[in-house]
Amino acid sequence: MKVSIIGPGRVGATLAYTLALKGLASELVLVGRNRDRAAGEALDIEHAQLFLRAPLEVRGGDIADVAGSAVIAVCASAPTPTDMSDRNQLAAANVELMRELIPAAVAAAPDAKLLIVSNPVDVITWQVLQLTGLPPTQVFGTGTLIDSARFRDALSNQVGIHPADIRSYVLGEHGSSQFAAMSLAQSGAEPLEDTPERRELFKQTTDAGLQVFRLKGNTCYAVAAAAAEAIEAIVHDTCHTMPLSIRIDGHYGVEGVCLSLPVVVGAGGIERILLPPLNAEERAAFATSARRVREVIEAVGAANG
Amino acid sequence: MKVSIIGPGRVGATLAYTLALKGLASELVLVGRNRDRAAGEALDIEHAQLFLRAPLEVRGGDIADVAGSAVIAVCASAPTPTDMSDRNQLAAANVELMRELIPAAVAAAPDAKLLIVSNPVDVITWQVLQLTGLPPTQVFGTGTLIDSARFRDALSNQVGIHPADIRSYVLGEHGSSQFAAMSLAQSGAEPLEDTPERRELFKQTTDAGLQVFRLKGNTCYAVAAAAAEAIEAIVHDTCHTMPLSIRIDGHYGVEGVCLSLPVVVGAGGIERILLPPLNAEERAAFATSARRVREVIEAVGAANG
Amino acid sequence: MKVSIIGPGRVGATLAYTLALKGLASELVLVGRNRDRAAGEALDIEHAQLFLRAPLEVRGGDIADVAGSAVIAVCASAPTPTDMSDRNQLAAANVELMRELIPAAVAAAPDAKLLIVSNPVDVITWQVLQLTGLPPTQVFGTGTLIDSARFRDALSNQVGIHPADIRSYVLGEHGSSQFAAMSLAQSGAEPLEDTPERRELFKQTTDAGLQVFRLKGNTCYAVAAAAAEAIEAIVHDTCHTMPLSIRIDGHYGVEGVCLSLPVVVGAGGIERILLPPLNAEERAAFATSARRVREVIEAVGAANG
Amino acid sequence: MKVSIIGPGRVGATLAYTLALKGLASELVLVGRNRDRAAGEALDIEHAQLFLRAPLEVRGGDIADVAGSAVIAVCASAPTPTDMSDRNQLAAANVELMRELIPAAVAAAPDAKLLIVSNPVDVITWQVLQLTGLPPTQVFGTGTLIDSARFRDALSNQVGIHPADIRSYVLGEHGSSQFAAMSLAQSGAEPLEDTPERRELFKQTTDAGLQVFRLKGNTCYAVAAAAAEAIEAIVHDTCHTMPLSIRIDGHYGVEGVCLSLPVVVGAGGIERILLPPLNAEERAAFATSARRVREVIEAVGAANG
Repeated sequence: MKVSIIGPGRVGATLAYTLALKGLASELVLVGRNRDRAAGEALDIEHAQLFLRAPLEVRGGDIADVAGSAVIAVCASAPTPTDMSDRNQLAAANVELMRELIPAAVAAAPDAKLLIVSNPVDVITWQVLQLTGLPPTQVFGTGTLIDSARFRDALSNQVGIHPADIRSYVLGEHGSSQFAAMSLAQSGAEPLEDTPERRELFKQTTDAGLQVFRLKGNTCYAVAAAAAEAIEAIVHDTCHTMPLSIRIDGHYGVEGVCLSLPVVVGAGGIERILLPPLNAEERAAFATSARRVREVIEAVGAANG
Repeated sequence: MKVSIIGPGRVGATLAYTLALKGLASELVLVGRNRDRAAGEALDIEHAQLFLRAPLEVRGGDIADVAGSAVIAVCASAPTPTDMSDRNQLAAANVELMRELIPAAVAAAPDAKLLIVSNPVDVITWQVLQLTGLPPTQVFGTGTLIDSARFRDALSNQVGIHPADIRSYVLGEHGSSQFAAMSLAQSGAEPLEDTPERRELFKQTTDAGLQVFRLKGNTCYAVAAAAAEAIEAIVHDTCHTMPLSIRIDGHYGVEGVCLSLPVVVGAGGIERILLPPLNAEERAAFATSARRVREVIEAVGAANG
Repeated sequence: MKVSIIGPGRVGATLAYTLALKGLASELVLVGRNRDRAAGEALDIEHAQLFLRAPLEVRGGDIADVAGSAVIAVCASAPTPTDMSDRNQLAAANVELMRELIPAAVAAAPDAKLLIVSNPVDVITWQVLQLTGLPPTQVFGTGTLIDSARFRDALSNQVGIHPADIRSYVLGEHGSSQFAAMSLAQSGAEPLEDTPERRELFKQTTDAGLQVFRLKGNTCYAVAAAAAEAIEAIVHDTCHTMPLSIRIDGHYGVEGVCLSLPVVVGAGGIERILLPPLNAEERAAFATSARRVREVIEAVGAANG
Repeated sequence: MKVSIIGPGRVGATLAYTLALKGLASELVLVGRNRDRAAGEALDIEHAQLFLRAPLEVRGGDIADVAGSAVIAVCASAPTPTDMSDRNQLAAANVELMRELIPAAVAAAPDAKLLIVSNPVDVITWQVLQLTGLPPTQVFGTGTLIDSARFRDALSNQVGIHPADIRSYVLGEHGSSQFAAMSLAQSGAEPLEDTPERRELFKQTTDAGLQVFRLKGNTCYAVAAAAAEAIEAIVHDTCHTMPLSIRIDGHYGVEGVCLSLPVVVGAGGIERILLPPLNAEERAAFATSARRVREVIEAVGAANG
């Protein structure tokens, strides 16, 4: 299975290494404007071949080299300002970057699933859908998968249950307006109550990405592991459920934007959108996320492709 | 980590092989009354060493050789009658078998977690608790874990979602009175409705073990994989949730019997019992399971240890 | 990747379970003359779905259902006499069985790699080559892979080195005339001397299969793990080296027979035959194996397809 | 199993992530002089918990927090000059760094195996042995494991065989005087001839680390994967063979220095040193490596601990 990664920076290269370690690709192409960097990351991974469970052909390449990919992970990004306080600060620059990179990628690999990792992920996913005209089953973003992972980790530490069994979802924007659908959270069929302590854990979760950024200057491991999870679902057709940023077409009264909802991911990309019975507060939060992301989309002209 | 298996018949030997393939033990002792059989199964697995991910010391042994085990899986069973229609037909013979085997095993390995696989598993788990006086966190049975796996597989085929994400639990007796807690079933936070079609799938699930038995003369793979899942949770302290047969001490108004409820499993055995808000029908079914298992316990004198 | 198993007896069913646990197939078809048995083994594995790392479609089927398989593992066998002292006792019956089963299988899946597990494996591999006219890269048997695994395990226990790093090969017949190419054995580039103690270990290795058979009445785990290793090499195109039973076409002066030599296994089946510089004693042993297998081939008429 | 990493820079953090993905530690402590960086890397990995196969406790810490570690990986390094042409340029600064860090680490965890990754690895391993007085089974460096992996990868591409089955060893200094023991190289028991083409591949291998450094500004993936392989051998007591930098005590007439030879690695650290029958050219190259490393040791005063 061929996977391509556009943007072999910190996140993209870590994702490539993750796919290599997990044996999720037999062919891996890293595409970057800095060709030396892309070739260097590929060579570094190639040298680990002896320690991989399955053979991997990995190399740097041009956009045209994504041809034949089952999945293209889009990780390209303008440099993150060291004082970044909101992912939307990257919107204008990354929208521009997509205009440069995506059309050629889709021309080369028209059937590839596009997994957007670049931030602000909801805005960029929307723009890639507009740019390409591809169906919404084929273009989607990592969205709140990473936030859900962080929140489950925090809850896991609180209740002593494995995060995979903490069925709790962070939905909406991958940003400050995200919300936790606590009315539906459960573990082993036992509801997880919506307590003030858990609201506090959720608040910390929303800020957790920036916290890591402030401590180490970037984030790469959790986001790469999350993206690898989505890619595994496509490559092995697992039909796992996870929240991803998708085009919202009237769900909960919202449309014209990308936001995260739980979906089923398989070989066909987004196999199904799941519609949890959100309570009034959660529906309002979803609508707020929609407005907020829509504003950024309009401000940076992403709506025009 | 040392694991012992008492009863290296079809299920026990398949469990040993599963643990070997998954690298879940570094030392494995197979104990059976037929010493040649136990030694032969151990040697057959030993010969697969080249193909295992981690080194394994595996051998046949006596009861005394379980000393130092973190987990003892109890798979010993009287022969299954070829016309068996209910696991309770094995109750009297297997209760007797436990009286023979368990006291010496616990004397040799007083701290081991005891995972009961022998049927009827709820009756046998109860009896082993009585025989040993061990705390209920330390003695538990595979119970409806296997039924839940079968039901999730059936639902998975129906709805196109990975069984790990079909959060639906079969609870109560590992036998004909078991029930599916459909009022709480969900997938990706979306409820799984309780439809007639799913009630039919559940009915087939209840019968699925006997169906396999009729087709191939035994069941071994799914039950071994289920037991390995519980052992992995103990060995790696995963704190995963799964339904297991445990001592019921007043939960939902029931006591004095073993039945399956969702629990958290970790290095300490049963780390926590989860209490889903069952509806009236489900509570009644739980009470029915309790009566039924209690009857067998009394009929075969398991209550007396 | 679709894999079919013809003959879901003890070895075939264990192989199916091994492939399921290792995630080496996405589709698995079990074909047997006893349709209930095949369906039952498939259903038992299907019920373990929840515990598998990747989704698997598994079912019983007819010969025609092998269509589209990348690999067909041939495990069908007449019943093993309880007093069996030589695998060649199965030759006449299994040659007959292949005449029944193989032509239809190859008609349905002309591009599948055929991995022969049925014994006497060198005779049966030869016969399947004759029956089908397929190229020798496409038809091969597990041969001495299992003997090499057993010998490495014994040496591993002696020298305290992981069997994968004991580079020692048992070659020739998968039977009593096999030999260990000790002149070439090494570990970590250090030669493993050919000592009397190691000759004794090798002698025990040759007998190890029958020893397991005498103890437990069958052998299944090591042989299934070995066959899974060969299938993994094909499915993931690993290009691993291992001894397999292949058609010998003049190698070391031998032809017209199947015997085990080290080969490279990949997506194309036998990618390359390796030719270690055997010493005179080893070459003589190879010629002896050839004569012995050739005699059985002629005695049972396997040469005529 | 607790593992600590001293120096959570690019290599150390990638190693931590690798151990997390491979499930090779249940507790992971990252120790760095920049406490924020260490805490940030730990938190980034902690957030990936949902995607790990086994639970992991990971955190930043002080040197004292390495107490109880089974393995300490030493990755601390002065910054690499952007124009570095030889790892020995780091010697003086890293020798100094070890004087600061190692005594406290060994005081806290006197039984831990110390795996040195910091460069120049042979010099630093020697110095840590001097500093600590620990037995040479307990202190060793990644040495030419990474060079061997690179050379096997190059040979693998040439001959179409999996690198794990290309039994060829790069030995001596992890630096420009290293050599390939081609007189002993084999694959599937077939010798790998010492051809001019392969000498050229080896020459490229020696330079491959610097090539990656020039392309991407650092190397992290292959070296982290190599270190993880050594740690897996300790943690799972695999007794795998691999070349590591160890104290040479008269082997091939050399002493008073650390260089790479093939060793057996297990729970006890270096379980055994293997002594391949090197030819005259290879012995001379080993002696040259010894002189060269000895010179650096003396130049930077590493001999004095």
